[in-house]
Amino acid sequence: MALQVSVVGSGPEHEAAAEEVGRLLAERGCTVVTGGGGEVMAAASRGAKAAGGTTIGILPGERHADANPWIDHVVVTGIGHARNLAVAASGVAVIAVGGSWGTMSEIALARRLGRTVVILEPGLDLPGVTRAATPAEAVELALAGGLSSLT
Amino acid sequence: MALQVSVVGSGPEHEAAAEEVGRLLAERGCTVVTGGGGEVMAAASRGAKAAGGTTIGILPGERHADANPWIDHVVVTGIGHARNLAVAASGVAVIAVGGSWGTMSEIALARRLGRTVVILEPGLDLPGVTRAATPAEAVELALAGGLSSLT
Amino acid sequence: MALQVSVVGSGPEHEAAAEEVGRLLAERGCTVVTGGGGEVMAAASRGAKAAGGTTIGILPGERHADANPWIDHVVVTGIGHARNLAVAASGVAVIAVGGSWGTMSEIALARRLGRTVVILEPGLDLPGVTRAATPAEAVELALAGGLSSLT
Amino acid sequence: MALQVSVVGSGPEHEAAAEEVGRLLAERGCTVVTGGGGEVMAAASRGAKAAGGTTIGILPGERHADANPWIDHVVVTGIGHARNLAVAASGVAVIAVGGSWGTMSEIALARRLGRTVVILEPGLDLPGVTRAATPAEAVELALAGGLSSLT
Repeated sequence: MALQVSVVGSGPEHEAAAEEVGRLLAERGCTVVTGGGGEVMAAASRGAKAAGGTTIGILPGERHADANPWIDHVVVTGIGHARNLAVAASGVAVIAVGGSWGTMSEIALARRLGRTVVILEPGLDLPGVTRAATPAEAVELALAGGLSSLT
Repeated sequence: MALQVSVVGSGPEHEAAAEEVGRLLAERGCTVVTGGGGEVMAAASRGAKAAGGTTIGILPGERHADANPWIDHVVVTGIGHARNLAVAASGVAVIAVGGSWGTMSEIALARRLGRTVVILEPGLDLPGVTRAATPAEAVELALAGGLSSLT
Repeated sequence: MALQVSVVGSGPEHEAAAEEVGRLLAERGCTVVTGGGGEVMAAASRGAKAAGGTTIGILPGERHADANPWIDHVVVTGIGHARNLAVAASGVAVIAVGGSWGTMSEIALARRLGRTVVILEPGLDLPGVTRAATPAEAVELALAGGLSSLT
Repeated sequence: MALQVSVVGSGPEHEAAAEEVGRLLAERGCTVVTGGGGEVMAAASRGAKAAGGTTIGILPGERHADANPWIDHVVVTGIGHARNLAVAASGVAVIAVGGSWGTMSEIALARRLGRTVVILEPGLDLPGVTRAATPAEAVELALAGGLSSLT
């Protein structure tokens, strides 16, 4: 399997950054995992596909059709916001781009499981989480942390 | 049904505050909902029982026996950390006492669902969440917010 | 805590039997656990309340208001059909009254966890599950199996 | 996205049939979804990979390393047996090969969501589920049903 990195977040103003994160992850050979929805999730997936990458979308609902068009592999969970745990857990690392309460829950659950989490600036104001100034730095920090967790 | 308020958190140094929160909730006629485990969860339940109240414990595992001794009604979910969503959602309001990543995920999920959340000082440093200086104030704010959400 | 027994099922033609099961469980001092919805779930809860018993409803949605009027303690899971696992697991035994695919999933999950399951006649045609001819027999078999699992 | 078909089941005596099902699905261009574990899950994934196909494993635990070696994309749910819902829901159709209570829960949940389910002989004795005599027939019936559900 390819290394999987989750991208979480929301907010249309963060889509350009998310797309860049997705592109950079794909260029590094990583599969991009998201919640399969719109805004940051769609942008990260779109960026990954533009770079020839692979994407997984882990949906809260019960229908494949709810996935955004850039999802290769659709996981239909049917468990609502509890799917945030699967999004957080399915990456060896998590990059947060923008976001609100749902994103905060994914960051917290990822940290609870010991996953590396990187917040891309400007991002949620949470104590004890690594921060990155640029998409490239976020990807480097995520990969460094995620790879070290595998050894 | 009685009004249900969830108490989330962790840390042995916060047990006295949690016990007081549980006692005050029970005196107000509220049922205390927790994750059914130790430390803050056990203390809040113990406080509620000492005041003649009722407690619900929503467990992550698959065995009733994992509940602390002050739980009246045991919900065995078998879904691990995803049970945090049920803990957050089952109160009309949530009071956070101490805590770490798991607690942060419960606060975030509760806010995602529009539940009132009150962080008791000294508590997690999260933006956009109401804070209370004392257990009594936390209970007042939780009940005020929780009741208004029902109308 | 009181002994908890889950009642699962559906179908308006099975409501009278479910109400009798709920009444008998309450008379034996058991708390009745259901999915908190209509038909068999509501009838079992109604029967328990008529006999002075206690009821827990484990809801699939995100709102307390979805519980039927005979639920004392509402667990709001927000995880859709995955809440069937919590319904199955939260009883020391499970009694199935009528039902269709959702009920079958609850029976299977309960058996997967080693819980005693009793199907009340006429019920689902599943191999390897104990069957009872009357509500009274269903309650006796459930309690016998559930109690032995605790020792 | 490619058409996704879930293969559920257990029992070492059914591995040869499961491997054939996985191979045939991959030859038809389908992605094979399983619970990511051993026996039937591993065999179906192995068959798919042998035919150049793609596999998704939806794990109950919290660790990527629990996936069998033939999984391309690992979904780490952390929700135990509740992940059966995601396995059932993530295919447009479900093929059951052997199996016990866990498999029965997946069949029931899939039918609850309206998914096509095919039981390969000799399989679980459940009323109201389509049956197939051979892996080839199981794949044909699954694809016919799954495709019609998309239109």
